[in-house]
Amino acid sequence: MAQKPSIPKGTRDFSPVEMVKRNYIFDTIKEVFQLYGFMPIETPSMENLSTLMGKYGEEGDKLLFKVLNSGDFISKVNEDQFREKNSVKLTTKIAEKGLRYDLTVPFARYVVQHRNDISFPFKRYQIQPVWRADRPQKGRYREFYQCDVDVVGSNSLLNEVELIQIVDEVYKRLKLNVLVKLNNRKILAGIAEIIGEADRIIDITVAIDKLDKIGLDNVNKEMFEKGIPQEAIDTLQPIILLSGTNTEKLAKLKEVLSASEVGMKGIEELETVFNYLADLDVTTEVELDLTLARGLNYYTGAIFEVKSKDMEFGSITGGGRYDDLTGIFGLKDVSGVGISFGADRIYDVLEQMERFPAETVNTTKVMFVNFGEKEEKYCLPILAHLRANGVKSEIFPGSAKMKKQMNYANDKHIPFVIMVGETEMEEGLLSLKDMDSGEQTKLTPDQLVEKLK
Amino acid sequence: MAQKPSIPKGTRDFSPVEMVKRNYIFDTIKEVFQLYGFMPIETPSMENLSTLMGKYGEEGDKLLFKVLNSGDFISKVNEDQFREKNSVKLTTKIAEKGLRYDLTVPFARYVVQHRNDISFPFKRYQIQPVWRADRPQKGRYREFYQCDVDVVGSNSLLNEVELIQIVDEVYKRLKLNVLVKLNNRKILAGIAEIIGEADRIIDITVAIDKLDKIGLDNVNKEMFEKGIPQEAIDTLQPIILLSGTNTEKLAKLKEVLSASEVGMKGIEELETVFNYLADLDVTTEVELDLTLARGLNYYTGAIFEVKSKDMEFGSITGGGRYDDLTGIFGLKDVSGVGISFGADRIYDVLEQMERFPAETVNTTKVMFVNFGEKEEKYCLPILAHLRANGVKSEIFPGSAKMKKQMNYANDKHIPFVIMVGETEMEEGLLSLKDMDSGEQTKLTPDQLVEKLK
Repeated sequence: MAQKPSIPKGTRDFSPVEMVKRNYIFDTIKEVFQLYGFMPIETPSMENLSTLMGKYGEEGDKLLFKVLNSGDFISKVNEDQFREKNSVKLTTKIAEKGLRYDLTVPFARYVVQHRNDISFPFKRYQIQPVWRADRPQKGRYREFYQCDVDVVGSNSLLNEVELIQIVDEVYKRLKLNVLVKLNNRKILAGIAEIIGEADRIIDITVAIDKLDKIGLDNVNKEMFEKGIPQEAIDTLQPIILLSGTNTEKLAKLKEVLSASEVGMKGIEELETVFNYLADLDVTTEVELDLTLARGLNYYTGAIFEVKSKDMEFGSITGGGRYDDLTGIFGLKDVSGVGISFGADRIYDVLEQMERFPAETVNTTKVMFVNFGEKEEKYCLPILAHLRANGVKSEIFPGSAKMKKQMNYANDKHIPFVIMVGETEMEEGLLSLKDMDSGEQTKLTPDQLVEKLK
Repeated sequence: MAQKPSIPKGTRDFSPVEMVKRNYIFDTIKEVFQLYGFMPIETPSMENLSTLMGKYGEEGDKLLFKVLNSGDFISKVNEDQFREKNSVKLTTKIAEKGLRYDLTVPFARYVVQHRNDISFPFKRYQIQPVWRADRPQKGRYREFYQCDVDVVGSNSLLNEVELIQIVDEVYKRLKLNVLVKLNNRKILAGIAEIIGEADRIIDITVAIDKLDKIGLDNVNKEMFEKGIPQEAIDTLQPIILLSGTNTEKLAKLKEVLSASEVGMKGIEELETVFNYLADLDVTTEVELDLTLARGLNYYTGAIFEVKSKDMEFGSITGGGRYDDLTGIFGLKDVSGVGISFGADRIYDVLEQMERFPAETVNTTKVMFVNFGEKEEKYCLPILAHLRANGVKSEIFPGSAKMKKQMNYANDKHIPFVIMVGETEMEEGLLSLKDMDSGEQTKLTPDQLVEKLK
C-alpha cells in the first residue's frame, strides 16, 4: 500500500448502516422539536477564539481545537514573543479561530449578533457536531453531535413543561423507557442559605447522592469530613431523608425552607411545573431529585436530567434554565431554558436494547438482478416505474456473477430481489424473491408496483 | 456591549428561514439519491494532514485549514527547526490534522480503509461541509456544504445514465429548468492524439468555447498564438464547427477520430449513454459539449456539467468518471463515477427565481394566542391534541401584549392563529384566524383538528 489510510484518534467514520440508524434518531428528535414550534439554526464550525476562550473554564480553553492562521503566520509573531517558546502565548499569536466546543456559546453569540432580526421568544433547535481535544476513550469522542433545543426571551414555566413534553414524546417514539429527574437551582440555593454554607452545595449534593449506597451515617460522616459543621448537617437531615411522592417531598421542603425566600421561590416553580404536567398527557415519570446539580454554576432555575430505565447508562438528555446566557456577549436579562439530547448515548442504548426498527436499515426496497443487456433493457422501464411510485429501487450495474449480485443485496439488507430471465420476458412477468422467507412469486409489472409501493 | 460578537470572515450563520430553505434542497436531493439506491456515509471533519496534503496541488495545500496540535506543541519542535522561523516547515511540526477540503479525498480514504467491509459496487452519497482558506467573496465561502453522490467499483455506463436520471429528477422536483452538458475525456484524448498535441487540450477547449463570442477566425488565431501548429488547427476545423443534434455530432466525430482508438472508445461510451437515455423518461436536455473539460486531470471517462436554463449562473452540478480514485491510497483499479450538487448555488437560483415553495417557510402551522392562565389551561389539552395529530403548533409562552404575540406569529410566518377568550370558553369553541386572508371562524376543537391536520 502506498500509504495506509487512517483517521485522527477520537474521530469516526459512519457507515451507511450507522448513518441510517443515526438519522432515525435525529429525524425523530427533529420531528418532535418542530411539532412544538422550534426551528433550526446552524452556526459556523469555526468561531473566533475571542468568542470561545474563557467560556468553559481553564480546562475548556485547553480542550478547544485551534485553527492555525493561514499564510505566513509566523512572520506576524514578534521576535521576543517567538523566542519565549511558550505554546499557550504563541497560540494567541498564530491561531485566531477555534472549532466550536458546544452549541450553547455559539447560540448565545448568535442571539446577541442577530438580536434585531429575532422575534422573541426565540425557539430554536440546533443539531451539529462539536469538537473537544479530550483524551479519547470508550464512548468519548473528539467530534460528536449535540442536539440542543432552547427557548430564549421568555420566563414562562410553560417552556420547562414543554421541554418535558418533548422528552416524553421523543422517547415514546424511540420506544425507550426513561425517567426525568427534575430539580431547581433556587431550592439548592435555599438549602445553602438556611445552613449558611452557600459554597458547599456541590459537596452536599454529592454526599446525599450516595445515600442508597453507603447509608445515612456514612453520608453524614462524609459531609463532616468535608468540613460542613455538625449544626448544618443536623439541619440537613430531613432533606437527606426526603422521600415519597413529589407532592410529599415538596411539602417537607416547604417546612425546611420556609425561612428562605429563594428556596420558597424554587418550590413554587417546581409546583407550577408539576401542576401543568398533571393536566397534560405526560406518561414519562418525572421525579424531584435534590441531588441533581449538573452545570450548577450555569443554571439558575429548573435543572433536568433524563436517564434510561431500561439499562444503567448515565444521563442521555439534560439541561436547565439559565438567566444570563447572553450576558457574556453584553446582552443582559435574556432568560432561557433548554435541553440537549445525547445522540451517541441514545444510539448505544437503542443498539444494546435492540430497539432500532428493522426497517431503518433497509433503505433500498428492491434490487433487479442484472442478467445481461437484453434483460436490462426489459427491466429499466419497470425500474423507472417503481421509482416514479416512490419505491427505493436499484438494478445491479452490469451483469456480474449471480452470487456476487445476491451477496450485494444481502449485505445491503435489501428485502426483495427481482429476477428476469428468458421465461419471464416471454411471459411479460417478473420473479420476485422475498430475501427473508426465500419465497418466490411471479408478478406482472403493475402487480409488482402495487405490492411494493 | 461587553464584547461585540462576530464570526470568522467567509463563514455564515443560518437563520431558521434560511435553514428550512436549505433543508428543502438537501431533503429533495437525499430523497432522490435514496430512490436510486444510494446510501449515506459521513467522515470526520478533521483528517490527518498526511491524508489531505498533496491531493489538491500546491495551491490546495495552502488553502487547507490546519488544526494546531493540542498541549505544549512547541516543545516538540527541535531548536534548529524552530529558529528557522519558516511557516510552511513549522506547520508540519505543530499541526497534524486539517479540515477536509472536499468530500472526494475523504471518500477515497474511506473506501480504502473500509474496503473489506464494503460490498462493491458501493453507491454512497455524502452531504457535509468542507473548508477552504480561500479569499472570501460574493458567493464564495470558507465553509460550505458539498452534496456528492458516487458509485465506485463498477465500470457499467448504466451508472452514468443513472446519475443523469438523478439530475433530471432532482431538478424536476426543484422546478428548475436545466441543461446537462456531457463530454468524454477519451474523446478529448482522441482529439489530442490526432493532432499530436496531447498537452494542449485545455488551450484548445478554452479557445473553442469562445466560438459564439469571438467567431471562428479569432478562435483559430487564439490557438495559433498559443503555439498550436497550423496543421493541427486545420485538422481541428470540423471539431470546432461541430453542430446539430448529438447524433450528428457523434457521426462527424467518428469521421475525424477514426484513427484514434481512445477517441473511438469515447464516442462508443457516449453513444451507449445516449441510447440508454432515449429509452428512459428523461426530459432534461442532454447536450454533447466538447468544450466541457472540468477537472480534466482527474476524470478519465464521462464529464458532466449542469447549468440553469432559467438564468446565467455557471455550473450548479458537475462530475465525471475517474478510474483511479483510490490509487492515491494504494488500492488500484477501482473505477468510480460521481457528481456533486452545488447547494449554495442552487439556493441562490431558487431564491432569485422565487421557486421556493411557500409552505417551506412556515414550519409552525398554528399558534394559540395566550390571554392568561385560565385561557391557557383551556388551550393546552387542545394544543396537545393537535400535536398528537401531527399538526406543528405552539402557544405563546406567557400572556404578553396582543401586538407582540401577533408580531411573533407574523415574523414566524405562522399561517393560522387561534384566539380563545371568555366567550369562546363558554361556548366550548375556538376562534381561528387565517393570517393571510384575515378571515376568522369559530370551530369546535374537533373541527379545528380536522381542518389543520
